[in-house]
Amino acid sequence: MPAPVDPDHRRRKIADIASDIISRKGLDAVTIREVAAAAGYSTTIVTHYFANKRALLLCTYQAAALNAQRRTETVLAKDAGDLQGYFEALLPIDAVSLRDWRVYFAFWQLAAIDPEFAEEQTRWMLHARHAIAGVLEARSRTDRALPSAPLTGLAKRLFTLLQGIAVQAVFDPHEWSAEQQRSFLADELRTILQTDRPSKARSE
Amino acid sequence: MPAPVDPDHRRRKIADIASDIISRKGLDAVTIREVAAAAGYSTTIVTHYFANKRALLLCTYQAAALNAQRRTETVLAKDAGDLQGYFEALLPIDAVSLRDWRVYFAFWQLAAIDPEFAEEQTRWMLHARHAIAGVLEARSRTDRALPSAPLTGLAKRLFTLLQGIAVQAVFDPHEWSAEQQRSFLADELRTILQTDRPSKARSE
Repeated sequence: MPAPVDPDHRRRKIADIASDIISRKGLDAVTIREVAAAAGYSTTIVTHYFANKRALLLCTYQAAALNAQRRTETVLAKDAGDLQGYFEALLPIDAVSLRDWRVYFAFWQLAAIDPEFAEEQTRWMLHARHAIAGVLEARSRTDRALPSAPLTGLAKRLFTLLQGIAVQAVFDPHEWSAEQQRSFLADELRTILQTDRPSKARSE
Repeated sequence: MPAPVDPDHRRRKIADIASDIISRKGLDAVTIREVAAAAGYSTTIVTHYFANKRALLLCTYQAAALNAQRRTETVLAKDAGDLQGYFEALLPIDAVSLRDWRVYFAFWQLAAIDPEFAEEQTRWMLHARHAIAGVLEARSRTDRALPSAPLTGLAKRLFTLLQGIAVQAVFDPHEWSAEQQRSFLADELRTILQTDRPSKARSE
């Protein structure tokens, strides 16, 4: 008797292979045929899980975002208020996170013109800002210098910082080595945490 | 006698049409055939100027970056130290600049995996940081609160801010309306200009 098929496992495997292809050869190189060959599946199996390239890309993007989220969860399990560690887990400072960012860029290109993908991207951005606010909240319990006011504005500023660093670092490892990303991040975190303006209206 | 052909005019026209297609339908929709049809040229004329899609995309990217640069020059011609105006000219706050950002995203996806495109992107980022340092320098002549120390570190922080806002605003016009982009920018500019740390080593 053949082993039972685990559909979630297959979907994850296919998305993982698509991530590899995107991050090495770009979105154009992702075809159902190539993904099937790399997975050792027939194209029929791949199309069973993903009706088209669009569905495959959406799942690949979600898988990359979940990878990144798992890295942050590992950091926060040790210290729920570790802002620096949280952002380091997201920045493109090693091969694993760089692969995620390449998948994001492939997705963004479509999200910039596709309302459904833009909505998915907006949902992840909101999710990230909430997660950052959660880290700030945890930190505020031990760090008295943090403002106790609503943390959504501060989270938005920190998320903007993350995005701003990452979209440069992906292209320019000379100016933005892992060490430079960490040090720039640390300086900015210090500055932003000292200068939040909770009285200004910056609600979501 | 037919009118003499202006090759630069044709190249610009073709790049402009490619920008429109990218920003409405995405990179996949850009084909030599479609661009030729929209321009009223034969495909032979288009391939005379652009050997392939790669060459066309590189020129389209450069055209978008030059469009943005021209908008900043218009602002700086009135006030060479107008930081807020400079960044507003670059942010995706209207249809024209949003089109540029959509072209950037299409280009980034390739630059993330292509050394030649990454180099082009790195060159433009360096150019932008120098331009920002120039605006800071002009502003420092009238604004005594600005640090007189090397402005490259400050320019890097401001460029990071610009990128961080833009990559959210393209997807999420609800959270990042033109007004919200301007106001977030103004708040951050005020904070960053007050808190530069010229003593820290952040040279290029």
